[in-house]
This record gives sequence, C-alpha cells and structure tokens, in this order.
Amino acid sequence: MPAFQTLPGFREFYPDALARRNHIFRVWRHTANAFGFLEYDAPVLEPLDLYKTKSGEEIESQLFNFTDKGGREVALRPEMTPTVCRLVGDKAATLKRPVKWFSIAEFYRYERMQKGRGRCFFQFNADIFGEPGVEAETELIALLTQCLRGFGLTEQDFYVRLSDRDLWFYYLEALGLDEARSRAVLGAVDKYEKAGDDAFKGYADQFGAPLDAALKEKVLAFLKIKSLDALEAVLAPHSATAAKLGARLADWKKLLGNLAAMGLEKYISVDLGVVRGLAYYTGFVFEAFDRKGELRALAGGGRYDNLVGKLGYADMPAIGFAIGDMTFGLLLEQRGLMPAFVQAPDVYAIIGGEQERLAAFADINAIRAAGFRVDYPMREMAFGKQFKAAAESGAKLALIYGSDELAKGVVKIRDMGTRTEQEIPKVGVLETVRDFLSAAS
Amino acid sequence: MPAFQTLPGFREFYPDALARRNHIFRVWRHTANAFGFLEYDAPVLEPLDLYKTKSGEEIESQLFNFTDKGGREVALRPEMTPTVCRLVGDKAATLKRPVKWFSIAEFYRYERMQKGRGRCFFQFNADIFGEPGVEAETELIALLTQCLRGFGLTEQDFYVRLSDRDLWFYYLEALGLDEARSRAVLGAVDKYEKAGDDAFKGYADQFGAPLDAALKEKVLAFLKIKSLDALEAVLAPHSATAAKLGARLADWKKLLGNLAAMGLEKYISVDLGVVRGLAYYTGFVFEAFDRKGELRALAGGGRYDNLVGKLGYADMPAIGFAIGDMTFGLLLEQRGLMPAFVQAPDVYAIIGGEQERLAAFADINAIRAAGFRVDYPMREMAFGKQFKAAAESGAKLALIYGSDELAKGVVKIRDMGTRTEQEIPKVGVLETVRDFLSAAS
Repeated sequence: MPAFQTLPGFREFYPDALARRNHIFRVWRHTANAFGFLEYDAPVLEPLDLYKTKSGEEIESQLFNFTDKGGREVALRPEMTPTVCRLVGDKAATLKRPVKWFSIAEFYRYERMQKGRGRCFFQFNADIFGEPGVEAETELIALLTQCLRGFGLTEQDFYVRLSDRDLWFYYLEALGLDEARSRAVLGAVDKYEKAGDDAFKGYADQFGAPLDAALKEKVLAFLKIKSLDALEAVLAPHSATAAKLGARLADWKKLLGNLAAMGLEKYISVDLGVVRGLAYYTGFVFEAFDRKGELRALAGGGRYDNLVGKLGYADMPAIGFAIGDMTFGLLLEQRGLMPAFVQAPDVYAIIGGEQERLAAFADINAIRAAGFRVDYPMREMAFGKQFKAAAESGAKLALIYGSDELAKGVVKIRDMGTRTEQEIPKVGVLETVRDFLSAAS
Repeated sequence: MPAFQTLPGFREFYPDALARRNHIFRVWRHTANAFGFLEYDAPVLEPLDLYKTKSGEEIESQLFNFTDKGGREVALRPEMTPTVCRLVGDKAATLKRPVKWFSIAEFYRYERMQKGRGRCFFQFNADIFGEPGVEAETELIALLTQCLRGFGLTEQDFYVRLSDRDLWFYYLEALGLDEARSRAVLGAVDKYEKAGDDAFKGYADQFGAPLDAALKEKVLAFLKIKSLDALEAVLAPHSATAAKLGARLADWKKLLGNLAAMGLEKYISVDLGVVRGLAYYTGFVFEAFDRKGELRALAGGGRYDNLVGKLGYADMPAIGFAIGDMTFGLLLEQRGLMPAFVQAPDVYAIIGGEQERLAAFADINAIRAAGFRVDYPMREMAFGKQFKAAAESGAKLALIYGSDELAKGVVKIRDMGTRTEQEIPKVGVLETVRDFLSAAS
C-alpha cells in the first residue's frame, strides 16, 4: 500500500497515457486553427459566484469550492463558459467581431464517479461571440464535425443531433402554454430519453395536475421529430398564427442548407428530443453521439445569447460547444483509432569508454540542439549490450564511438534499417546525421 | 467595474498571451524530446500530507488547501516534485531506468504578490530517477542549458551557477561542525546573498553564540568560491583527513569535464554561494540566472536522493530541475526574443451572395479539413470591403466566389503576394490551393 494515493476521480498521466492525450489535443488545436479560432486560457480557480450566477445556487454541491486564505469564496472551474464570457465581456469594445476562440483546459466537479466520468476532465471549448445569425451555428457545427473527423472517425462512427429551444418555446406557445409551463415541459423533454413517461411527473408536481393528455401526445410527437419535413408538417397548421415559427423554420433551412453545402449532411440528424438541460441555452442546441449509442454524449453545445448580459456586461450573442476528453478517448480506443505511440530516438550513441564518452558528448549535444532525439547509455556498458539497446530503442541511426574510430578521427555511423555502416570524419557528424534524418522523414 | 474579476494573482491568457505561452511550451517540449525525456502529467489537486511530508507543516501557510466534500485534506499542487516521486515510486518495479521524465504544468501558491511572481505559474519540470552518478547531472544541466538556448538566448544572456550541498557538509565536517550546526550554517549561506552578515543571526539564536569568527571567515571564503581551482586550493589542507572530500572533488571534475566536452563550459559558473533553501536537496544543486542579474532565478534544481524513500517507497536516486514561465517570459521579452505572433489565415474566401456562399462552403470545409486555415466574412459584405479584409488578414491566397465565376464553373484565385489572379475550375480548388501553399511553406 503506497503512502500517498491520487485522490479519487483524479488522473495520473504516465507517458503512454500522456502521448495519447497529446495526440488528441494536437488534432483539436490544429483543427481549430484551420477554422480560424484563436486559443485562449484562463484561471483554474474562480470566484464561486461566477458559477452561481450562471447556474444557480445548487451548482455549489457539485463543485470543489472553498474559502481561500484571503476570505474569498472560490471554486475550481467546472466549465469554461462563464469565464470566457467574462474575458470577452471585459474587452468587448476592442475585440474584432465575430470573436472566434477556443481553449483546451481541465475542469473539476465533485461528482459520484461513473464510467467515462471522473472528478476532473479536459474539454475542448470553442465559442463564437458577436454573430446572431446561423452562420455562427454553421461554423461551429462544421468545426465540431472536423474535430471528430480529424481522428479518422466517419459518419459510421458519430452523428450530431440538432435541436432548437427557440422552436420548442414557440411551438409550446402556439399550443397555448405560458413560459413557466413551457419550461416545465422542456424539463420533461430533457429527461424523457432516460425516464420515459416518468419525465412528465415533475410537471404534474409543479402545476397540480398531469400534462393534459392531448398536449402530452403533441409534445411526445414533437420530441420524436427526426427530419425537417416532419417538422414543417407539424408546424404547418400554426404558420398563420405564429410568424416566429415561420422565421425560425427559415433559419433551420438556411442552417441545414449551409451544412449540406459543406458536405456535412450525413453527420447531422434533426432531433427535437435534444434540449440540453442547462436553462441558459437560447436557440439551436446540438450534441454529438457515437452511432452505436453505447457511450455518453461526445460533445454538446448551443446558443446562449443571454449569458454575457447576465454576467453584467453588454449583451452579446454567443454560441459554443465542448468536447470532453474521456468519452471521446474511449471512442477512439474502441474504434482502433488511437495510434500506438512509439517514442523512438532518432539516434542512439554507442560509446566505448570514458574518453570516447567525452568525444560523443560533443556530438550528442549538437545533434540534440539541432532538434533530433539522441539516446545513449548513461553508464559504461559492453558494446554488444549497447548494440542490442540501440536496436530495441527503434533508433534510425547508431553512432559508434570506439577507441579505434577516435584514433582515426572518425565516427562509425550505422543505418539501423539497412544495417550498413560507414566511417565519417568526426567533424562532419552533425551534417551527416541531419542529411540522413531529413531524407528519412 | 465588471461584475466578476479574476482572482488576485491568477492570470488570463488572451490569444496574444497564449500564443507566447504556447511558443515557450513548444520549444521546451521539443527540447525535452530531443534529450529523450518522456512527458507525463498528474493531478492538480493532491492530498495535503504529500506536501507536509516533503516540506514540513509550515508549508500549509503557502498553499491553496481545503477540506473537500468527502472530508479529505487537499491542496492545489505548489510543485511537481513529490507527485513525480509518487508516480515513479508506484511503478518503480516496472519502469526502465534511468527514468527520464518531464512535464509542463501549472502550480499554485498562496503568496504575497511581487513582480515575476503570482499565485499561479507554469513550470517545466525535468527529472532523472535511478542514476546516482554525475552522468545524470550532466544530462540535466545540458537539458536546462538547451531549454534556454532553444529560444536564442546565449552565454551573454544567462548562466548556470553550480554548487554542491554534499561538499558543503563534508567541508563543514572537516572544520569540526556537527550536522545540526552545519545545517544552521547552510541556512545562513542560503540567506547570505540577500541578508549579508545578518544571515548568520539565526545561527547565534540557535546555538547561544555567534559563529566563531575564524570559522565564519572560512564559511564566507568558501561561499565566495567561483572556480574549481579555488575549490581545490581551499580543500587541499583537508584531503589527507577527509577521503569524502577527495571523492567529491573527483565528481566535480568529471561533471565539469562532461559539460566542457558538450561545449557548455561557458554557461557554467562554479559558485558555492548557491545552496538552495529546500532542505531535501542532497548533492549538486544549480540555478540559472540572467547575466545582468536583474531578475529572479530562471530555473533551479538539484539532487534529492532521499525524497522517494521519505514518501514511503524504496529509495531511489533522483535529480531534477524546474524552469518557471514568468521570469523566463520576462527575460525573453527584455531580450527581444519573443516572436510577434501573426495569426494569419492561409486562405481568405471572398463571397458574392447567398448562392456563392453555398458554393464557397464546400471548398472552405475541404481546405480546412486538409489542414489549412481559411477565413471568410460571416455576413454579406461588399466585394471591396472583403478585398480589404483579405489583405489585412495577411492571407497568402484569396479565393473569389462571384456570380460570374460560378456561372462559368470556376473560382478566381488571387496570389496576395504577387497580386496576380487566375481562374481555376471549381472542382480543382483544393488541389490548386494545396499545391500553392505547400510550395510557399
């Protein structure tokens, strides 16, 4: 039993695990760059009120929060959204719009632990501020799709469920529900996939009676809508009375048309069953899932036009999404898309004795300074063992520093692939290695 | 006054600042890889006792520590060393030695804020476990040097002060001091640079009388030693009685010989004035400073052969160092070595109207999926304004989607450098862009 263990829900990244994490981060970062998103980062520790203001008092039970030595109520960040709103809100006057930003950062929640969910996790967050139109949705959903495709995932592996909280509210209003009742219904829709009919119990509690049977049928039919055609058909009877519904349908057509123009149609499912629990979303919402339906959501996001204002800044339209690293990493493993990371040196130096070591050091340091990886045995070791170590290391080249070579002012260089050797003048080692490795890569 | 501010001592990284941070991390990571160090990472939150065991109860006053919702005493990590000892100690039986690891991570200390020191900071940490000989010191000091040289810093800009706590203890023992008195003297040596003669006050308090005048002169002379020759001269009278001193001098000669063989002599200063406050160091210690002496230490490290054992694992020799990002970033700025980051797109798409936008989307998404950055205006905009935006963006290419072009089934491509345009078939846009950008890079 070791003296100190990692806290429950926290993760250690030994080099193999970190190589996998770095691979994921690298592809995300590269993809976000291709889409013109700029990377930012922000504090791990924030005022507790930032999260309470966004999500309500009850959020505190899920946080790592405490009083710091200066008497401040603080919390380890559970998400990036309120922080990025603050960063953008603070410099709203000078930032060029639309603001397209991303971050890769760790977050912390004090939760019961389950598969694919610990107490800390990384997220890729991407957001667009300052653009109210569906061009922002287009850009973000395209980015999300490419953030998954970039690993070799295809439409066989994942899809994005697209829904719309505005449309839900407009439809429920057309059915005669006021905002409080609509919110209760949306709460039920959010729970429906897991809880089935029980999802509607909360509505009954809140309004003294279950949802009217005919209305409930309409809600169930609406949440099962899976195509634009079906959506249009259901909304057709209301188009005369609800202009908002018609305008919203036009937004839907434009967004789906944009995504189709990008060749992304096959990744997108219209799915009014998604409403995303968080009350702060205001329009289109979307979630990415594995096609087999075996895993939690891979990513989720949506429009949140009111949050920047709610935090005390001038109102600004906003939309964003996050991909978590845990479920996503699981999917890559399951699909065999996580590369095996061989961390092999470029060069292995085989060293005779103490004098030869000094001669080798000059080259080793110069080759490393040129950016190539050089390994060598730290202790004196028989030549045979060193040749074996060189072969096992996966090095492309071996440099052999023996007393014979030193006496002649040369170094023997061995191509580990072809197993051929040649002698090169000691002064030319760096150039020879550089030429060989540049040609090989 | 904004509603929520970043906590005092914490940092926001707007895109410009993050680009600079990424540059620093990129060079560190690349350099560590060239030296064959593997990257790891570990939890941000750790059991408080991990730090108390390493550094004593008094460390708590400098930490962000609290009781979590499960009643655990936890702390935000103030450093990586005890954590990496745990990771290595836990898998000591299976890890191939020497273990050469590095990490780039953020740390948190509840401190009074000063220039170049906040309440959070990043560190590059590199450690070698399992190698007791000075080959480990050689490797680490070479890595540290290259981690600074990799940014264009030269021996005009920085140097590494090399000292040795073992040698200090052996020398003080030869002078007749027991361990407790030697520790008190080392405490004074550690404070001497800042406090001068006042540094020795603690010794007087502890032992009821000031340090004997002759002894104090010897200590002062020893801490001012700046060369191996001077060191040998001072130690010569003791060589007959203290075999340990002789063996230690041999280690010094070997280490300095190794570093000289690597061409690093000019970066290294023998300097017995450095002892590093932390009591857990056991042998060679070193610190990197700017040559002008204007800044805090850039980096520091040393051998800590007892810590793995102290944390409850089997003993293992260990040595490591850390570079902090704040002082180091300051030095790069002062020397003009921080690149100006122009985050320009590769391609700017200039788009006529709605139909042209749909045609452009297909190409934009395909070019981005191929890894190139494409920007375009999200809203409809006059051609003239778009040409201006394309020029200002710094894009290498503009793609022009007008109605005339669409009617002909072509896209106009403009080389923003030469200001030449040509029409290319719509189906060939990706290939043409790829060829152009590959040739340009």
